[in-house]
Amino acid sequence: MSANKPVRVALLGCGTVGGEVARLLDEQSAELAARVGAPIELAGIAVRRPDKHPEVPADLLTDDAQALVDSDVDVVVELIGGIEPVRTWLLSALRQGKSVVTANKALLADSSADLAEAADATGADLYFEAAVAGAIPLLRPLRESLAGDRITRVMGIVNGTTNFILSAMDATGASYAETLEEAVRLGYAEADPTADVDGYDAAAKAAILASLAFHTRVTAADVHREGIADITATDIAAAKAQGRTVKLLAICERVVDPVDGSESVSARVYPAMIPRTHQLAGVGDAFNAVYVEADAAGELMFFGQGAGGAPTASAVLGDLVAVARNRVLGSRGPRESAHAQLPIRPMADTPTRYHVSLAVQDKPGVLAQVAQVFAEHDVSIATVQQRDADDTASLVIVTHTATDAALRATVRDIEQLPVVHEVISVMRVEGEDA
Amino acid sequence: MSANKPVRVALLGCGTVGGEVARLLDEQSAELAARVGAPIELAGIAVRRPDKHPEVPADLLTDDAQALVDSDVDVVVELIGGIEPVRTWLLSALRQGKSVVTANKALLADSSADLAEAADATGADLYFEAAVAGAIPLLRPLRESLAGDRITRVMGIVNGTTNFILSAMDATGASYAETLEEAVRLGYAEADPTADVDGYDAAAKAAILASLAFHTRVTAADVHREGIADITATDIAAAKAQGRTVKLLAICERVVDPVDGSESVSARVYPAMIPRTHQLAGVGDAFNAVYVEADAAGELMFFGQGAGGAPTASAVLGDLVAVARNRVLGSRGPRESAHAQLPIRPMADTPTRYHVSLAVQDKPGVLAQVAQVFAEHDVSIATVQQRDADDTASLVIVTHTATDAALRATVRDIEQLPVVHEVISVMRVEGEDA
Repeated sequence: MSANKPVRVALLGCGTVGGEVARLLDEQSAELAARVGAPIELAGIAVRRPDKHPEVPADLLTDDAQALVDSDVDVVVELIGGIEPVRTWLLSALRQGKSVVTANKALLADSSADLAEAADATGADLYFEAAVAGAIPLLRPLRESLAGDRITRVMGIVNGTTNFILSAMDATGASYAETLEEAVRLGYAEADPTADVDGYDAAAKAAILASLAFHTRVTAADVHREGIADITATDIAAAKAQGRTVKLLAICERVVDPVDGSESVSARVYPAMIPRTHQLAGVGDAFNAVYVEADAAGELMFFGQGAGGAPTASAVLGDLVAVARNRVLGSRGPRESAHAQLPIRPMADTPTRYHVSLAVQDKPGVLAQVAQVFAEHDVSIATVQQRDADDTASLVIVTHTATDAALRATVRDIEQLPVVHEVISVMRVEGEDA
Repeated sequence: MSANKPVRVALLGCGTVGGEVARLLDEQSAELAARVGAPIELAGIAVRRPDKHPEVPADLLTDDAQALVDSDVDVVVELIGGIEPVRTWLLSALRQGKSVVTANKALLADSSADLAEAADATGADLYFEAAVAGAIPLLRPLRESLAGDRITRVMGIVNGTTNFILSAMDATGASYAETLEEAVRLGYAEADPTADVDGYDAAAKAAILASLAFHTRVTAADVHREGIADITATDIAAAKAQGRTVKLLAICERVVDPVDGSESVSARVYPAMIPRTHQLAGVGDAFNAVYVEADAAGELMFFGQGAGGAPTASAVLGDLVAVARNRVLGSRGPRESAHAQLPIRPMADTPTRYHVSLAVQDKPGVLAQVAQVFAEHDVSIATVQQRDADDTASLVIVTHTATDAALRATVRDIEQLPVVHEVISVMRVEGEDA
């Protein structure tokens, strides 16, 4: 097909995704060579225990990842995950001018600046489509297709485990604890589900998305993060009663300051109520979906499988073809784009909307007292529903947009009102015009 | 920002999209230069009547497109449309080694082979993201992100005008003629709506999508095309009664022959019933959405605005940044990928499913007679609903998959049955497991 010499690839990791990548490299080799303009050759696979991988040829396996990186390879594909020692291996690869394809969201959300600088120093490529939303081509559109547009907002469901749990809670009315147990049993959640349910996984992805969307270095530490472990069946029921559903959202927003017009980036992960008519509401099971809003393009949505061996391998191979092709052409892909350097907006100053459900005394004047607290904090109320049951009444309030700090302070003061028996549910509202 | 010399751009056409591109090139010039690594400089704009464009600087305007193409420019952005004389200008640009960005679906669906060969001869780039589904980043994912995967099916709503009309017919129950009139009045359809309602626009897009998805040259002439002009309020009501809705779909499929296992490409455009629960069913107004199925990635969906000045300009600028960046790096983007050269499958041999609604005599044995006709053509019935009203009964039949020719022949024979009063509605069914 081509007289070009092969592009030699080192594969770090041979788990679910790595195994699938190795398989596809073999199965699709003619097809891949046609796309790249040269054969792609798997030079070696670094794994912790070479004796545990009977599925791949033994002569490809090694337990010395650094030696494999240092050998005569052009591209390093990393599918191990975690920060060290992977960080050291990939920095070393990039400094040697070897391109890197990785699905490692934690590493990117921690060290993308260092990795980008190492890549820039030698002109190597750093591609990571598989790190966010699995098979969904999302980073390439953000990096390339929308390169002439101004992105204002990225909002998505980027963690399949939590989406499975919340979808199931919505469908069955069961508690969080029961549903998590079921998710673990079915293999949708890991035995230690912390990274998923506490939002760490989604926060790393939000950092990557915000960096690309706003040309600003955003790390996981910059992302405001709340998980789903405190979501109750009552929260879910409250959402349902209002035609909403609860989703764990990663939200990256370009916030224009209302006073001085300056721009900043808000990156946050939390469970929020969205209207059941919203397209993200229909995203069930472990699927991922991401909304993007841009000045010229308007609203875009990307939907697909966010995890799993084959879907993630598809994204890895797309990157590998691009990187290998760049090698053959002596070119390189888009560099890190961090020229905007926008400041990160603290969560307290970020505009949000709240839903608040209260159990209150059933007597005249209660709504007036509650409304007064909102007014004191300059929080404007969008809708109120009042319902009576025996001597307790319920109040469901949805606010207009206000700063998160003002909304929190409002809720805190409302809890102190003697006429309020209980704050039943407090949750942010997204996906509706304020 | 950069010491690189400017990338000079010729703009052909300054209508809704061209005007927006010119505006954004000016407004976003610093941002674009940062992404490209060199300033993008608008060298000139070719229009038919330079005196009709007070919105752009007069010294940029010319009525001589060929001279502008021949002048000292690096990239030609074409937003005029139609085949000649645009084809001549773009071939000439590519033969001079100048890269081309175009939104011209009709030209691409007619002459992509000639354009690709001209581009290959000089190493110039040919990009056309805006030609299909406006702002939605769809071609780049097909060309690049899924480059290591095997696409099996692309199915989408790619024409906003017909989607507006069908959505309105579904919502109001009005006739096609009334709804078309309304669409013209509101500006959703042109005074001569032929290109949209007869499916020519969608067929051109199907040709482009099939070419990219299956690495095979597919032209508009290869696409089986049926429009929406014959859709009746009765068809829409029949769909509704079964929990389905009618959409004009562009479908590109890799068909594996059940006998010899050989592969071929089916590309077709027709109105079809899809379940109301299908994600494409919720795509209303003039929005576009495209489903992609690939072996490893699984199901993907892309959604957004399919037309309009700003959304289309966003796609054009994304391409322009890529092409300009390739210039600066001395590189080039993905070439035409036509190595698979699969044959085009005739519509008659393509597997489809039919819905057939019949008004029949209300007497015993009618269903047996009708079912016998299906059996004679080897068409298997999936579901039958029978309903009585006075002395006429209705039969609603949905088939399993069979060849389109067998299904057509079945319908033709059923029309001849004495027990059948009338064939009320015949339409293909998509988006369900057969």
